[in-house]
Amino acid sequence: MLSEEENIKNYLGSVIRTIPDFPKPGIQFKDITTLLSDKKALQLTTQALCKPYYESDCDIIVGLESRGFLFGTNMAEVLNASFVPVRKPGKLPSETLSETYELEYGTDSVEIHSDAIKKGDRVIIHDDLIATGGTALAASNLVERLGGVIIGYSFIIELGFLKGREKLNHKTIESVLIM
Amino acid sequence: MLSEEENIKNYLGSVIRTIPDFPKPGIQFKDITTLLSDKKALQLTTQALCKPYYESDCDIIVGLESRGFLFGTNMAEVLNASFVPVRKPGKLPSETLSETYELEYGTDSVEIHSDAIKKGDRVIIHDDLIATGGTALAASNLVERLGGVIIGYSFIIELGFLKGREKLNHKTIESVLIM
Repeated sequence: MLSEEENIKNYLGSVIRTIPDFPKPGIQFKDITTLLSDKKALQLTTQALCKPYYESDCDIIVGLESRGFLFGTNMAEVLNASFVPVRKPGKLPSETLSETYELEYGTDSVEIHSDAIKKGDRVIIHDDLIATGGTALAASNLVERLGGVIIGYSFIIELGFLKGREKLNHKTIESVLIM
Repeated sequence: MLSEEENIKNYLGSVIRTIPDFPKPGIQFKDITTLLSDKKALQLTTQALCKPYYESDCDIIVGLESRGFLFGTNMAEVLNASFVPVRKPGKLPSETLSETYELEYGTDSVEIHSDAIKKGDRVIIHDDLIATGGTALAASNLVERLGGVIIGYSFIIELGFLKGREKLNHKTIESVLIM
């Protein structure tokens, strides 16, 4: 018999849609809009994301643009934390720090407001999905450059075969679903 | 003496930062990242956004990319609704409807998944800010083309002098703060 937790994971897995060849050939895109369209799944996802962190004494959820904005703020409310966005270049209006990371072809960058994290702030990095982990690692570098402490990572979906977990190299990496 | 509601509005107004000349000269950008960085303000904002709609029997919150993703999902949880994103072109992976709207110079477009709204669904359109109302109106056209019923609009900030309210021309337009 399955545990309640396994039943919830099976249910959430069943409402995520896979779109072949998006955004380019060979990629099996995990579409969470079908999860968001199911109000029960939406609530269960917030609960599943927060569950490992109820006792974490977290100060800040850092959410990655733009799908990390969806559940990042819900997690912040449940965990009684604040929320800080990490965004693509040029989107944040005040003074920023920037971090560049490698893509398959070329590089990309993310930014954070320089005044968004204080020394010693306890931070969870959240995104909807971890693939190779490049964006999450860049975000955690930004947090650490501002003196924040990464207490863990939080994802809805982990693409296990891409080994992003190894790149992050942290003891607390929580994914609701490993696909 | 101020009412509790007025006190909350004054508090939320005090934690929103104005950045002059962003993203271009002459624009006074309303920066809500400082509101998100205040966990009390974050929670009060969700409550203030939801308050007019507790009895609305809403099915779906439609949130506009990307700052409408921040509180749209929180509203969905509180109002026991689901969430549907309206995104910039090319971001949604399945079949979409598109709507083009006028900018000061040129045009822009937004998209919604064609299967995201069913006939008769009761929808609230949410974004962080309404300026001229072009994006919100385009989103509401998408919802109506799919058979949805707009029961209201929800914004944190309304730039009253830009008269976006007149463009939407709907009896229920709820803004937490008019600036």
